[in-house]
Amino acid sequence: MDYALTAKVQQPYEQTVAAVREALAEQGFGVLTEIDIRATMREKLDVEVLPQVILGACRPPLAYAALQAEDSIGLLLPCNVVVRSLDDATTLVEALNPDVMVTLTGNAGLREIANDATARLGRALDALAPGRPEQKE
Amino acid sequence: MDYALTAKVQQPYEQTVAAVREALAEQGFGVLTEIDIRATMREKLDVEVLPQVILGACRPPLAYAALQAEDSIGLLLPCNVVVRSLDDATTLVEALNPDVMVTLTGNAGLREIANDATARLGRALDALAPGRPEQKE
Repeated sequence: MDYALTAKVQQPYEQTVAAVREALAEQGFGVLTEIDIRATMREKLDVEVLPQVILGACRPPLAYAALQAEDSIGLLLPCNVVVRSLDDATTLVEALNPDVMVTLTGNAGLREIANDATARLGRALDALAPGRPEQKE
Repeated sequence: MDYALTAKVQQPYEQTVAAVREALAEQGFGVLTEIDIRATMREKLDVEVLPQVILGACRPPLAYAALQAEDSIGLLLPCNVVVRSLDDATTLVEALNPDVMVTLTGNAGLREIANDATARLGRALDALAPGRPEQKE
């Protein structure tokens, strides 16, 4: 199992971050948390990395169902969506594969929830990179 | 592999949340994100769950080393620490087992980073529940 669902987007970073938020919203995901990796690394360590943000995406009905099925599933929530610049014209969007929830817990009660999340994230990635091959960087 | 590192704390929820923040800080982890599950479920779904918070813990030097070793590791950052009430007098603290990073990626370059994170999280949990058996709920 690949732990990332991926779309390579032929757009600059800032535009892609905005498009990712829209695509997630269209699939019913809110963004509950946001970590600007570049800013954090600059501030804490005085090192430079390419632009990258970790968005914590959450679809509340799915999160609630997951919490009912597995007491400790908060450890794998929200669903991280990483947007990171590859170069000025290309940005990679990655979402944590929801199958990870099933694999790590061994809880079959999470199967349908993971399938629903995977389908929604897949549609969001398709909207960002139509016809995407599921290519890694 | 158990995906959670666990400590059962004989203290009410609010006190435990404060103690967790202190214990993490003592081990060099900042808290970058925070999701109040109970408040989110109330607001979004009008359902009641026991008090629970997801803290996104990050030790910047470890995060930086992980990003150097594995391009997509942002998908598993920050390290989630869940604090949840079991009853008025008992609170469960769980941290995502850093070995998950190695297992999911198959990247041996993350081994030492995961070991360092596991040792630090273990000491934080020990401080919260001295002599803890690593018991699940």
